Amino acid sequence: MTRVTVFGSGSWGTAYAAVLADAGCDVTMWCRRAEVAEEISSEHTNRGYLADLVLPQTVRATHDPHEAGEGADICVLAVPSQTLRDNLGSWGDVLGAESVVVSLMKGIELGTTKRMSEVIHDAASVDPSRIVVVSGPNLAPEIAAKQPAAAVVASTGKLARAKVAEASATPYFRPYTNGDVVGTEIGGAVKNVIALAVGMAKGMGMGDNSMASLLTRGLAETARFGVRLGADPQTFLGLAGVGDMVATCASPLSRNYSFGFKLGQGMTVEEVVADTRQTAEGVKSCESILALARQVGADVPIVEAVEAVVHEGRNPKDLVGLLMTRALKHERS
Amino acid sequence: MTRVTVFGSGSWGTAYAAVLADAGCDVTMWCRRAEVAEEISSEHTNRGYLADLVLPQTVRATHDPHEAGEGADICVLAVPSQTLRDNLGSWGDVLGAESVVVSLMKGIELGTTKRMSEVIHDAASVDPSRIVVVSGPNLAPEIAAKQPAAAVVASTGKLARAKVAEASATPYFRPYTNGDVVGTEIGGAVKNVIALAVGMAKGMGMGDNSMASLLTRGLAETARFGVRLGADPQTFLGLAGVGDMVATCASPLSRNYSFGFKLGQGMTVEEVVADTRQTAEGVKSCESILALARQVGADVPIVEAVEAVVHEGRNPKDLVGLLMTRALKHERS
Repeated sequence: MTRVTVFGSGSWGTAYAAVLADAGCDVTMWCRRAEVAEEISSEHTNRGYLADLVLPQTVRATHDPHEAGEGADICVLAVPSQTLRDNLGSWGDVLGAESVVVSLMKGIELGTTKRMSEVIHDAASVDPSRIVVVSGPNLAPEIAAKQPAAAVVASTGKLARAKVAEASATPYFRPYTNGDVVGTEIGGAVKNVIALAVGMAKGMGMGDNSMASLLTRGLAETARFGVRLGADPQTFLGLAGVGDMVATCASPLSRNYSFGFKLGQGMTVEEVVADTRQTAEGVKSCESILALARQVGADVPIVEAVEAVVHEGRNPKDLVGLLMTRALKHERS
Repeated sequence: MTRVTVFGSGSWGTAYAAVLADAGCDVTMWCRRAEVAEEISSEHTNRGYLADLVLPQTVRATHDPHEAGEGADICVLAVPSQTLRDNLGSWGDVLGAESVVVSLMKGIELGTTKRMSEVIHDAASVDPSRIVVVSGPNLAPEIAAKQPAAAVVASTGKLARAKVAEASATPYFRPYTNGDVVGTEIGGAVKNVIALAVGMAKGMGMGDNSMASLLTRGLAETARFGVRLGADPQTFLGLAGVGDMVATCASPLSRNYSFGFKLGQGMTVEEVVADTRQTAEGVKSCESILALARQVGADVPIVEAVEAVVHEGRNPKDLVGLLMTRALKHERS
C-alpha cells in the first residue's frame, strides 16, 4: 500500500487527501494547527475549510511534521505558496532522499520569482525528477463532493508522475500525465490573476461574451509568457491551461473570481479582505508574476492591469475598458 | 458610407445589423417574413428574437431580397445553415460579382458535409477571397445590449477581412482579423455540439470541474479535427476557438447549452423541442459534423456521444460517464 503524507490542511490539501484515501493509499495529514489535526483524527472533518466533507476514516492527522512524514512514499506539499520556503526550512528534511514530492501549490515566490517546484528543489535539495506538479480544473469543494474531474500530473520524471497518477486515480478523479512542469506551473499561477480580472469584469456588470473574451486573451498572455520560460505551448490548450482557467473564471466557488467580483462592484482590496477574511492567491502572487514576466520580456497586459488595481489603487473601470479598446488588429499580432 | 445588407433576421443577424449601424454603415435587412420586415422598419424592433433591442432608426428592412441587396458593398448571410443552399438558389444572384460576402452561420451542411463558406462558393459562385467568416464569443442578447465583446473576422482575402473589420468596429464590438477560415468555421460549428455535452453534464448535476474538463477535451477534439482539414491549430486558442466555446458552454443564454441541460435533466429531444419551440444548431449539425470527421479520420468522441444521445436515443448518463472513465493516459496521447 502506498504511504502518502499531505503537508497542509487547507481546502485543496484536504480534498486531495480524500482522493488519495479513496484511491487506496494510506494517508497521513500534517496540520499546522493542533486543533485541526485533532478534528481530522477524531471527527474526520475539516469544517473550517470544507464544511460538507467527511474524510475516509483511514486518514490520520498530526501536528508533528516528522511524525507525519515518516516512511512516506509520496509527500504532498499544500502549504500557502509564500510560506513554502520557511516550511521546508523547518521540516524539509522529512522529504528524505527517495520519496516523490508533489506540489499542489499555485504561485510564484515573491522576491526570488521562483516557481514552487524550484523552491522545493532549492530549499529541500529534491531532485527535479522526484518533483511532481498536480494541477487542472479542480475546485476543492467539488472534488470533496466527488464530482467528476480530470487533472494533470506533471513531472520530468516518468516514474514519479506515473506513481502519483496511479496513487490518485479514482472513478471521480482522473489524472493525465504530462512532462511539462514549467507550463503546468505557469498555467496554475497566472490563471488566478486572470480570474481576478474576469471577476472584476463580471462585478462591473459585464456578460459572458466579455468574460470569454478576457479569458481568451488571458490564456494567450499566459501561453506567451510560459513559452518564454520554456513551456510547451500545447500545455495551455490542456487541463492545466484552458481547463483550470475555465473552472476558476466561471465558478463562484473560486476565491480569486469572487475576490475580483467584489472589486468590480466597487469595494477596495482592504474591504474585500475584511469581508472574506482571506486574501486570494492571485492578489498575493500578481506582483511576483509580473516581476517574472518582466525579467523574461513577456507582454502580460492583463496581469499588469490587475496588479495596478490590487497594489496601486487603480480603478478596475479604467483597466478593463483599456483591454477592450485597443486598435483594430490581427488576432495573433 | 458603406452599404451593408443583412440577409436573415434571427437573433444574431439582427444583433449584428445593430453593430453595423452603430459602426456607421447604411444597413438594410432582408426578412423572410413580411411582418418581421414591417416591424423592423416601422417600430425598429424584432421582439420575436431580441425582446429588449431597439435598432438604430437608420436600419431598414424588406421582404424582397433583390430590393434589399441592391448596391450593397457587403452582404451578410445569417439564414439557418441548412437552408443556405436553397436561399442562395433563389436569390444568390444579388451577391453580384464584387460585394464582400460575410457568413455568420455556424454549421456543416447535411449530405454534402460542406462548411458554410464552401456552400456560398458552390451555390453562388463567390470567390473565396471575397468570403469572410465572423465568429467568436458573441451571444446575441449581450451584443444587442452593447456588452463589450471581441470577434474574429476571417478570410483568405486581406482586403475583404479588413473591410469587414472596419465596417463592424464599435466601442463595444472589437473585430480581430485572421486568415484561417477553416479553423474559424470548424470552431464555430463544433462548439455547439460540445455545448450540448456540457449542458447535459450540468443538467445531470455535475459541477464546474466537470464542465471545464469536458470543455477542454472538446476543444482538443475540435483542434485535432480542424487540423485534419487544414486549420491552423492556433485558431483554437483564440476567440473563435476557446473564446466562443467558453461563452457558449458557460452561459444559460446559449440555446445549445440550454437544450443539453434539459436533456441532462431527463427530457427527450422531442420534449425539449416542444418545450423551447426550436431545435438547437448543434442538434441539427452533429450528424454532418460526425460524418465530416469520419471522412477525414478524426477521432471525435464527444461529438459521437452527443450524436448517439440526440439521434439514437442513448441515455446521456451512459455517455458522459464514458468520457470520464477512460484508462489512465498521457495528456496528449
